[in-house]
Order: sequence, then C-alpha cells, then structure tokens
Amino acid sequence: MSLLVQKFGGSSVADVAAITRVARRVVDTHRAGHEVAVVVSAMGDTTDELLDLAAAVNPGPPPEREMDMLLTAGERISMALLAMAIEHHGVRARSFTGEQAGMRTDRSHGRARLLDVTPDRVRRTLDEGAVAIVAGFQGVSEDEDVTTLGRGGSDTTAVALAAALHADVCEIYTDVDGIFTADPRIVPAASRITRLTVEETLEMAAQGAKILHLRAVEYARRYDVPIHVRSSFSDAEGTWILVGRPLTSHLEDDMEDPLISGIAHEMSLGKITVVGLPDIPGTAAAVISAVGAVGVSIDMIVQNVSTSREGTSDISFTLPVEDGQRAVAAVQAMQHQIGFVDTHYSSQIGKLSLVGAGLRSNPTVAGRLFAALAEAGVNILMISTSEIRISVITDQDRLAEAVRVVHTAFHLDAETPAVVHGGTGR
Amino acid sequence: MSLLVQKFGGSSVADVAAITRVARRVVDTHRAGHEVAVVVSAMGDTTDELLDLAAAVNPGPPPEREMDMLLTAGERISMALLAMAIEHHGVRARSFTGEQAGMRTDRSHGRARLLDVTPDRVRRTLDEGAVAIVAGFQGVSEDEDVTTLGRGGSDTTAVALAAALHADVCEIYTDVDGIFTADPRIVPAASRITRLTVEETLEMAAQGAKILHLRAVEYARRYDVPIHVRSSFSDAEGTWILVGRPLTSHLEDDMEDPLISGIAHEMSLGKITVVGLPDIPGTAAAVISAVGAVGVSIDMIVQNVSTSREGTSDISFTLPVEDGQRAVAAVQAMQHQIGFVDTHYSSQIGKLSLVGAGLRSNPTVAGRLFAALAEAGVNILMISTSEIRISVITDQDRLAEAVRVVHTAFHLDAETPAVVHGGTGR
Repeated sequence: MSLLVQKFGGSSVADVAAITRVARRVVDTHRAGHEVAVVVSAMGDTTDELLDLAAAVNPGPPPEREMDMLLTAGERISMALLAMAIEHHGVRARSFTGEQAGMRTDRSHGRARLLDVTPDRVRRTLDEGAVAIVAGFQGVSEDEDVTTLGRGGSDTTAVALAAALHADVCEIYTDVDGIFTADPRIVPAASRITRLTVEETLEMAAQGAKILHLRAVEYARRYDVPIHVRSSFSDAEGTWILVGRPLTSHLEDDMEDPLISGIAHEMSLGKITVVGLPDIPGTAAAVISAVGAVGVSIDMIVQNVSTSREGTSDISFTLPVEDGQRAVAAVQAMQHQIGFVDTHYSSQIGKLSLVGAGLRSNPTVAGRLFAALAEAGVNILMISTSEIRISVITDQDRLAEAVRVVHTAFHLDAETPAVVHGGTGR
Repeated sequence: MSLLVQKFGGSSVADVAAITRVARRVVDTHRAGHEVAVVVSAMGDTTDELLDLAAAVNPGPPPEREMDMLLTAGERISMALLAMAIEHHGVRARSFTGEQAGMRTDRSHGRARLLDVTPDRVRRTLDEGAVAIVAGFQGVSEDEDVTTLGRGGSDTTAVALAAALHADVCEIYTDVDGIFTADPRIVPAASRITRLTVEETLEMAAQGAKILHLRAVEYARRYDVPIHVRSSFSDAEGTWILVGRPLTSHLEDDMEDPLISGIAHEMSLGKITVVGLPDIPGTAAAVISAVGAVGVSIDMIVQNVSTSREGTSDISFTLPVEDGQRAVAAVQAMQHQIGFVDTHYSSQIGKLSLVGAGLRSNPTVAGRLFAALAEAGVNILMISTSEIRISVITDQDRLAEAVRVVHTAFHLDAETPAVVHGGTGR
C-alpha cells in the first residue's frame, strides 16, 4: 500500500463530465489498495469569472484580503463536487479547505508563502479509509485570514501536502503524457522524458517549458518529494521528477550522446539594444536599474564593444514582450542623463534552451548546437549558459524550425509522434 | 452612534448593480456615524446553480457535509464582492465566514442549530472603524466542519449576530417597504404595518405571510432583538418587530376597531377528508399517524359526526398541496385496517388568517369576519383559532376576493396603494 497525493488542475475538473472522470480515477486508485489525498484547483474558468466580478464592483486594484476570500470560493466548489462524485461510487470522501488541511501561511495575500503544513485531519481521514480532498492554492494566515499562494499555487499545495504526509509520490495530472523533449506542438517527433532531475526541471520551467510551477519544484527539492507528471486521460507512465539521485537522462543507454533532457523554448520575448553607451563605469548598471525601477524583469544581458562607434559599447537585453514598451520608455527617459546614442527594440525574438546534465563541461554540445542552427540558416543573436543549460536567442519566426533541427541533431526524435490530448493544459 | 446589523438577501445582491447599490447604502449608514455589521446571502441564483451541479455529479442525495461545503461558497463570493464594493467608496470593510464570525453550531449539516455566537473579530473590526460583513446561513461545528442553518438561515444569522453584539436594531432588507396588512399583489389597498409584536409576526409567518423565517423571529423573541423590516430600494420606514412591549397595532388610535395587524393567506393547500370513520377511539389518531409516517405535516384538522352515515365520523385535514398525493396514498393503504368508507381529496383549497391582539377574547371579530365572507358569497370550509389568530379555509378560487373583502371589512384599506418594487422578495 502506498500513499499517493494526486493533483488535478482546473482543466481536469472543468465540468461535470471532467469531475466524474477524475472521481473514477481516484476511486480506482483507492480500490487498488492505496491511500489517496487529492489536491484540486477551481473549475475551469471559475477564477476568471470571479476576477471579472471583482473588477466590476471595484475597478481599482481590489483589496487583497477580499480577493483571496473571493477566489478561494472556486476550490470550495470543485472539491465539494469531487467529494460527492467519489461518494457516488461508494467510496467515502471528505473535502478540506486550506485551513482545515493545516496549510498555514504568512500574511501576504495573493502570494502567501507556506510557513507550516500540519495535515492532521487529512491523516485521520486516510486512517479511516476515506479519500481526503484538499483545496489547492489556499491557506490560512497567522491572523486566521484566508490566503492564496499565487500562480501555480495548487502544484505547491500538492507537493507540500505530499511532503508533510511522507507520501510515496506526488502525482501531477495534466493533459499530456508527461514532460517532453520539446513542445509536441512544435516538434511532432518529441518524445516523453522518463526521468528528470529537479534541477533540470527547474531549468526547463524557467526557460519557458510549461511543466510545473517553479515554487512547487523548489519545494520538492527541499523536501525530497518524488513527482510523477502524467496524463489524466490515460494510465500510461508519465515523467518522474526525482531528487537526490544521480543525474541521468532518458537516453542514458546511448553513451556517445551528451545527457540532454530536452529543449525548452519561449516564443514571446522582446529585445532592447542600447547603442553607444559611454565607456564609463556604471552606465550599464544605470540602464538596467532604470528597467528594474518600472518593475520589469530582465532575462538575458549581453554587452559588447560597439561596432558602430569607437569608445562606446552596446548593451542588449531580453524581457517579456508585454513589458517591452514600458521598458523602452524607462530607458529613453534616461538618455540625457546616461548619454547613450539610441535604442532599438524588437518584439520578434525567441529563445531556445537545451537542458541536460553537465552541458557546460561537455565541449561537443555547444558545437553541435551551433552547427545545427548554422546548417538550418538560423542566426544566433545572443547566448547564455549555466551548468546544465545552453540558451540562444533567435528571430521569432525561425524559432520553431530551430527547435526541430536541434531536437534532431541531438537524436531526441522519437520513432512515433507524441499524442496530445484536448485542452490547453494546467 | 448606533450599532446596526443590516441583512441583505440573495435578490438584494443578485448582480453587480445590486451589490453596488447595497454598498452605497452601507457606506451611507457608516458615514452617518453608525457602526455597521452586514449579513449577506449568496447572490441571486447561485444556490440553485450549485444544487444543479451537485445533482449532476451525485444523483443520490449527496453527502450533507459536502453539500454544506459547496453551498457556503455562495456567501463567500457575495460577501467578498460587497467588501470590495464598499472599499471602492473609501470605507474599510472586512468579510468573515460563519466560522470567523464565531457562529458555532451543532453537527446537523443542512439544518444546523446555533450553539454559541462569539463575534469577537466582528467586534474588533467595528472598533477599528471598519464595516464587518458576515456570511449568512453558515457556521462551524464542534468538529470544525462547515455547516449551514437551512432555509431562511441568513435571517437567523442576522438576528443572532445582532443579539451577540447587543445591536440597537437588526435591519432586514427586502424588496417591499415592510410588512403589509395583506399581500399587496392581492389587495392593492394593503397598507404598511408600522409595528408588530414578535407573537403577531410569528402567527403571520406561520400562516403563509412571507416575511421572515420563523426561526429568526423566535431567536429575536428569546434575545429581545428589535427587527426593522424595510425596503432596500428606499429610505422609508418599514415595519418594526418589537419584543416585550405591550401589544399594540398600527391602528391603535381607533378605539372602536379590534387590534388587527393584518391578513395572511396561503394559496396552495390540499384538503383530505376521510369519510365514515368507525366511532372507535384511536381511529382518527391512526389516520393522522399514517400521514405523519410519510413525512407530511398536517396544518388544520376538523372532526365531525358524519352527515352521511350514522355511527361514524368524518375527519378533514389540510396540508401542503405538494404532499397531497403522497398523503392520500398513505391513508388509502390503511383503509382495510382502519375500516373507513372513502377518502376525498381537493387540491383547490386556500387559507385566510386574521392576525391581531386578543382576537379570541373579542367576540365581534369572528362575527365581522364571517359576515364579510358571507356577504361576498365565500363559503367557509374549516375554521381554527388561536389567541391572536382566526383562520378559515375556503375554495382557492375565492381566496383572493376573500382577502380583499375582509381587508375592507376591518378598515385596513389604505388611502394610497402600496408600491411593490421588482424581484420576488426574500
């Protein structure tokens, strides 16, 4: 007998049919002799509908405490319905709010951090042979106020619950069969990754692969929680994310290849180039600070001696495309003070990231990557690396092809194409 | 400075416009220097929508604990939105669940009784100069489970909160200007009642006047809470329901009239007559027990010597029309055992009740009532009385006219017709 935490996102409980399907899976797991604690998000569009109502009654940013009170109604509905659907199959089920499940957080409404997880009632429910259902995304503060954990919070709830219950595995259900070597919508030959380390998962997630929320993966690393990302539409094995095991890859049998896990990509990036910066210490920092001051996070930065003007340098950086105009305005406002010549902005930038074990120490990887891109005529605009990642910036309209040729060059192509089931994921 | 509890039902917070209107009223009351605690129901159709979802995932009677978890999402949404709308007007507001407001109940899910009300957080919120908003209808059990108080529960929450806070008044907002001498949809000349005793209110409510839930009025009597039933569409005075004051009426100046408060009526009643019951002790009880055994509540009972068959008696009783067929079947199943001759059933029965102070002791009242009905040609089928009520059963198709002629006969007609605003009330 194992103890499993199963997490189902909003699209997995979007309507009555979906809830019924999830209930059947939970019941099957329970009947197979396992203890099951379920974490569930709000149904499909519930959160968006509640946000619309909030904006209608209070167009200013509404009070955060009340926003949390409002949004947590969503999981209350989905978890109660799921409990009813499970009971309809003859298995006892009890739903618990974040507070009832012992999810204690700080007071930061809308982005609360977990301080303590004491799922005593969940434990007792499992001991009684029933299924426990816990509201994802929510907790209770020291002030006994309802809090939410922010984007991806249900993943964090699931991993934290699994850690506190010493679960054998935290299963994250999604609409694909796990994590793939590349996005199957771009690379039809993408194959499912059998195992990933937490570090690789973090790099994949940070580089744009829509897998798991970063916080949940970090939590899994800290508390050594094995995660199994799998499809809610099938019983197939998904991708295991494991902590504290030696770095391995799904291609471990092929000794000639580097241990590439997969390719992440990000389509919607912008790039700002500040041209002709005076070659004085602190000018680059002044540019970057100006962008940070308007709340924009910079991704990659490259500084070069200017090709156009002697004694000056150019600095380029990438950022989320939706922040582009704001950042450009912030930089331009500093032109007189900093003394640069001009700014260029492109909203047509993409990023490809190769993630895997020991990439930096393997000299052949970068070479093979650049050769593949060159052969396909894809221009590399910027490069950055970490111990287990190499990222390149390309023109957006060449990115999909770049992902495909690199996927092939590293022998990641599967013999049979990946199958993607309905929905948009999460 | 007074402390007011203001209760708004589902139709008062049915949509964004309605919530905005309620927010403005609360803000105005607060700005006038009063402390305001608000009790709010779920928005309009929310409860029905949630019930539909529950029936879809679990067609059997769904587990009551989970049903309470589900339904309490409704007030969570309305109260958070109302808090946001109030904050938008620059007044601080905090919403509280039943649990946070200290509404402790027994474990009877779906029909919980209040055991203890300790609104410490509400009190602190008022002390800080903010508006407190409390979810109606809900509480928390000794097991820390979410409970609901059943039909009319939000009225009970409001009165209980007013009692615990020693509020000066509990205002119950509805879509008419208070309680009327008769239903204005039937009697256009109905006039608003200025004051009612709790006892009169209980009789009016029990006899079909849709005013306040009985439990709330009983709670008000026990804890001496003054209630003000008034319109959410105007600032006009409504009807005050007062405890422990001498019985008075809105017509107290007119010494020649009995102290009639108003006329309640109930359109949809059924009447079962069991004909030719053997004149043996216990046969009437056997009939009534058979009906009770299938969960049907009987309203009025009359037993007579049978006009058709010597040595036997007839028994007639009224009941909610939706229970009619079930009750008839239960009685007929006993025919052999009890030995009566036949049953007659009519679903076309109505009830008119005259409520007021000391009716039984005033011999002119019954006479004037019967004379008015006789003059209008309305046949009286059954009669029952209490200290402050006389009820008559008539044919349903004559009931509206009966209410009008009695209203006129007791000089209750107003000079200007009552105005009824939109909605279906609560």
